[in-house]
Amino acid sequence: MHAKEYISAQFQSLQDDICRQLEAADGTGKFLEDKWIRPEGGGGRSRVLEGKVVEKGGVMFSAVHGPLPEMVARNMQLPPTDFFATGVSIVLHPHSPMAPIIHMNVRYFETGAGRWWFGGGIDLTPHYVVPEDARFFHEQLKSVCDRFDARFYPDFKQQADDYFYLRHRNETRGIGGIFFDYLDEKTGLSQENLFDFVLAVGQTFAPVYTELLRRAADRPWGEPEKRWQMLRRGRYVEFNLVWDRGTKFGLETNGRVESILMSMPPVAHWAYNYQPEPESIESATLGWLRKGVEWV
Amino acid sequence: MHAKEYISAQFQSLQDDICRQLEAADGTGKFLEDKWIRPEGGGGRSRVLEGKVVEKGGVMFSAVHGPLPEMVARNMQLPPTDFFATGVSIVLHPHSPMAPIIHMNVRYFETGAGRWWFGGGIDLTPHYVVPEDARFFHEQLKSVCDRFDARFYPDFKQQADDYFYLRHRNETRGIGGIFFDYLDEKTGLSQENLFDFVLAVGQTFAPVYTELLRRAADRPWGEPEKRWQMLRRGRYVEFNLVWDRGTKFGLETNGRVESILMSMPPVAHWAYNYQPEPESIESATLGWLRKGVEWV
Repeated sequence: MHAKEYISAQFQSLQDDICRQLEAADGTGKFLEDKWIRPEGGGGRSRVLEGKVVEKGGVMFSAVHGPLPEMVARNMQLPPTDFFATGVSIVLHPHSPMAPIIHMNVRYFETGAGRWWFGGGIDLTPHYVVPEDARFFHEQLKSVCDRFDARFYPDFKQQADDYFYLRHRNETRGIGGIFFDYLDEKTGLSQENLFDFVLAVGQTFAPVYTELLRRAADRPWGEPEKRWQMLRRGRYVEFNLVWDRGTKFGLETNGRVESILMSMPPVAHWAYNYQPEPESIESATLGWLRKGVEWV
Repeated sequence: MHAKEYISAQFQSLQDDICRQLEAADGTGKFLEDKWIRPEGGGGRSRVLEGKVVEKGGVMFSAVHGPLPEMVARNMQLPPTDFFATGVSIVLHPHSPMAPIIHMNVRYFETGAGRWWFGGGIDLTPHYVVPEDARFFHEQLKSVCDRFDARFYPDFKQQADDYFYLRHRNETRGIGGIFFDYLDEKTGLSQENLFDFVLAVGQTFAPVYTELLRRAADRPWGEPEKRWQMLRRGRYVEFNLVWDRGTKFGLETNGRVESILMSMPPVAHWAYNYQPEPESIESATLGWLRKGVEWV
């Protein structure tokens, strides 16, 4: 079994790798680093980018420990115990409305009681859904999953559909991806194998997103596309603040606000009762924002 | 005792009055009306304004009825019953960063079981706190409250401080105001008297806000003030989506999304870990965003 220090060191290297690849893809933007310490134990390295291609992005590493927040213990039906959690979290908001917003998270959790598990996922939120890009994105995720367990992709794809869902809008946040939590020995895989899987998910992130940015680079856009992007970013805010369990949990348990809210877009718009024209490309995108679309 | 139809008709007239006064203050903007019907019973008149002074504003009336949502019944320890609810809700986002955001709500609730109560309040969210305006605002609210019960202002002022609070930021939303709920015969006032109070609160709204707009009209501003306004609007979004019980309740019980989210600003910004310069007017404003400031 890997020690938690090993996993956390590997996650730090993953953060380094991803930042390097994103800086190369952006061309001019450089990440600014902010190290922070958690009073109750542990800390993190927040890295934020304001670049030429990425308007606002965060690639956050953290490794924290201490008494398990009471709320979590209750939810998981655990007695009071210590915990250790480490992970990498990313949200990138591109300048171009033709490029998608992306979110990635990988994390490892251990309790004093000897329990451990992995969680995470990657999901994509295009302002305009481009079916061949959506297919490419899901194929890449499926191929990582399939290297470990053929049940992973269908299971985790459905979990992403269910999780990234704005119930009040009856819309998915985007075209989904994969989402998983509480992966432990009950999967039939060892802790080492599951760590390899989670790391492989993390390593898929940068090549897949830079390919999506490359494809979007040639697509022209103007004011109408920018306006639509701003409204879609408003939906991103709604999901994160109303429905995202991670955000909610962080804000309610006195987490580091600036790290939690790095997922917020730089600018978002709201318009009363805005409806795109029927038959428009905006309407076509809304048509894709539903559960159960099989992209692969 | 006033019939619920009477109260609801009076609230409609209040909506009319307020819209007329706001149009006059704005100078050019006209409210657009949107009538809607609630499938389970009742409906509303949503009115939205995009004007010269008010960038985005909503003045919403509704009167709805039907079976009491299970969640509410449980919270209030009531058996399954029918309910009737009517009210006026307002949020106005001005163009000028030197003018405050304002929120007002008055509402009346009845259950089949014969219970009834009033709720509501007015609170102010200046992008820049101007102490003499804050004093004027609170004095006006106190003087309405004092006409009915000397205990109202101190009690409702504290409730506003407690309610309009972003726990994750350790900031109040603005300079507060008054907030009250479940006002019934236990106050010692009759239903008719309490209705007069709530209506008086509603009637105070337009003259007070137009006076605040008048004062703000001469205050110059430029890009830096606009940027600060956008960040403060981000905080307004955070409060409404994370902490506001009304918004949460509406979104979770399948309320009319466009009416609930009319409170969202037209545009909002987020910046990672933004801190205003010490000694700046922005810092001074942050200094006022705490509970327990006695403005009167």
